[in-house]
Amino acid sequence: MKDKNSSVLFQRIAFIGFGLIGSSLARVVRRRGLAGHIAVCTRRRETLDKARALQLADSVSLDAEEVARGADLVMICTPLSSYSEIAAAIVPALETDCIVSDVGSVKTSVLRQLGPLLPAGVHLVPGHPVAGTEHSGIDAGSAELFAGRWCILTPPPGTPVAVTERVAELWRRAAMNVEIMDPEHHDQVLAMTSHLPHLIAYSIVDTATDLEGQLKKEVVKYSAGGFRDFTRIAASNPVMWRDIFLANREAVLEVLSRFNEDLTALQRAIRRGQGDKLEVAFSRTREIRRGVIDAKQD
Amino acid sequence: MKDKNSSVLFQRIAFIGFGLIGSSLARVVRRRGLAGHIAVCTRRRETLDKARALQLADSVSLDAEEVARGADLVMICTPLSSYSEIAAAIVPALETDCIVSDVGSVKTSVLRQLGPLLPAGVHLVPGHPVAGTEHSGIDAGSAELFAGRWCILTPPPGTPVAVTERVAELWRRAAMNVEIMDPEHHDQVLAMTSHLPHLIAYSIVDTATDLEGQLKKEVVKYSAGGFRDFTRIAASNPVMWRDIFLANREAVLEVLSRFNEDLTALQRAIRRGQGDKLEVAFSRTREIRRGVIDAKQD
Repeated sequence: MKDKNSSVLFQRIAFIGFGLIGSSLARVVRRRGLAGHIAVCTRRRETLDKARALQLADSVSLDAEEVARGADLVMICTPLSSYSEIAAAIVPALETDCIVSDVGSVKTSVLRQLGPLLPAGVHLVPGHPVAGTEHSGIDAGSAELFAGRWCILTPPPGTPVAVTERVAELWRRAAMNVEIMDPEHHDQVLAMTSHLPHLIAYSIVDTATDLEGQLKKEVVKYSAGGFRDFTRIAASNPVMWRDIFLANREAVLEVLSRFNEDLTALQRAIRRGQGDKLEVAFSRTREIRRGVIDAKQD
Repeated sequence: MKDKNSSVLFQRIAFIGFGLIGSSLARVVRRRGLAGHIAVCTRRRETLDKARALQLADSVSLDAEEVARGADLVMICTPLSSYSEIAAAIVPALETDCIVSDVGSVKTSVLRQLGPLLPAGVHLVPGHPVAGTEHSGIDAGSAELFAGRWCILTPPPGTPVAVTERVAELWRRAAMNVEIMDPEHHDQVLAMTSHLPHLIAYSIVDTATDLEGQLKKEVVKYSAGGFRDFTRIAASNPVMWRDIFLANREAVLEVLSRFNEDLTALQRAIRRGQGDKLEVAFSRTREIRRGVIDAKQD
């Protein structure tokens, strides 16, 4: 009997960018036989060689147009700042009914950048698999990366349901749960759940980086008290995160100002010795923690 | 042959408070036979029953004085705000050469609170095992909790080396590395490595708690993007943390103001679209991460 999860969904998937997310998805595609052909384009020859060595690519090229030619799915897996350039490169190669998708962490900017460039008959289905580790690059990839997590798709109005469904099915085969969402709403939610936490983690580790030598050494030595969890988050890809903050500026600044208000209130309570206020604040946060555990997202 | 790690270090260890840290240490003491007798005092009868059931206590009582009587080590494992009351209760029971120690996360306040109350001939050796989980209470305890982490001791000037060494040896048997430190310096280092990260985690989860219903649900649902790590830290014991911030007020406010400056600089770079500044900041934080991994604290 044929495994219902193993059947060809796309004849040719073109990966543009092949880091943690791209190569992890390719591992799933390969393992389950979801594509007739996997074509891979990256900026660096070294990454292409690795993709070959890992048997994750049937063909490779440094030329995005060449890789995209004949694809029924082009999956962009690069930092957000490269999207316009990639779109310009691949447009001549895109055939009617080809789907262009991506894995970027901001969705309004993807629609803004890619939407106007794609020719009629080509479908845009932006996506965001909410999964990852602090490690970057093809070597960090894993077919299990996505299991049990959510993938959010933000197809523009007018996208045929069957087209969105093809991309959704790909992510379901990676063991993800799929949700369709308005891109503005996606960017607000992720600003809170992902972008703000990363900004804060980068900031606190930055603060420690500025300490003078001896104290900095000790901060590392005694990091088990909480700090090390922030260093993990702050070890994520700097270019990817630079692009996320620039692309989702408004939503990030909005949640950041809320956070600043709340932190200032705690600061004030500490300065004034208001233990009751601190205890109330520290107790109510447990409700959210229970929610995260109940939602099996821990 | 006798295991060199298994020999009686104290005739009677009195635990005042028996939560995550106290009961974990008692598990080590029991497993390795480090005490002739383990006496346990807690506020709640239910915890004493559990200590008995887990065979971690040879005697139990709700009365701290009774438990401390005849002990050569009294180990205080309660939130910092209860220290003065505990000291007042146990002082009549303390014998000459008894050692009073603790596991609190702030050390200047311990010396301030306990120092003047203890009778001559009783030794104070404050300690801080830098280990823990987000779970609280006796059920969360584990003999492996301390392995490979650091325990910081802050004996006041004039404490005999042999006395400090007895406490150090206890923690070494729990597989900790022991460091002697000035209490002011301890409080500065921990403000950065532990207290600030907890304050920030509480604050960001607090921000999410204030979101309206639907958005709050989605924040939980998509928490895998970074937020969930903060919810873990913010699930720590509220009373313990209230006391830490009140006891280490000056050092916490100092690192918090540094953090605020750094976060404001990142905020400014985002608002102005200064990608180069963001990338530099996000890249330099990796150095600290490498340090944490090299120090085997991850």
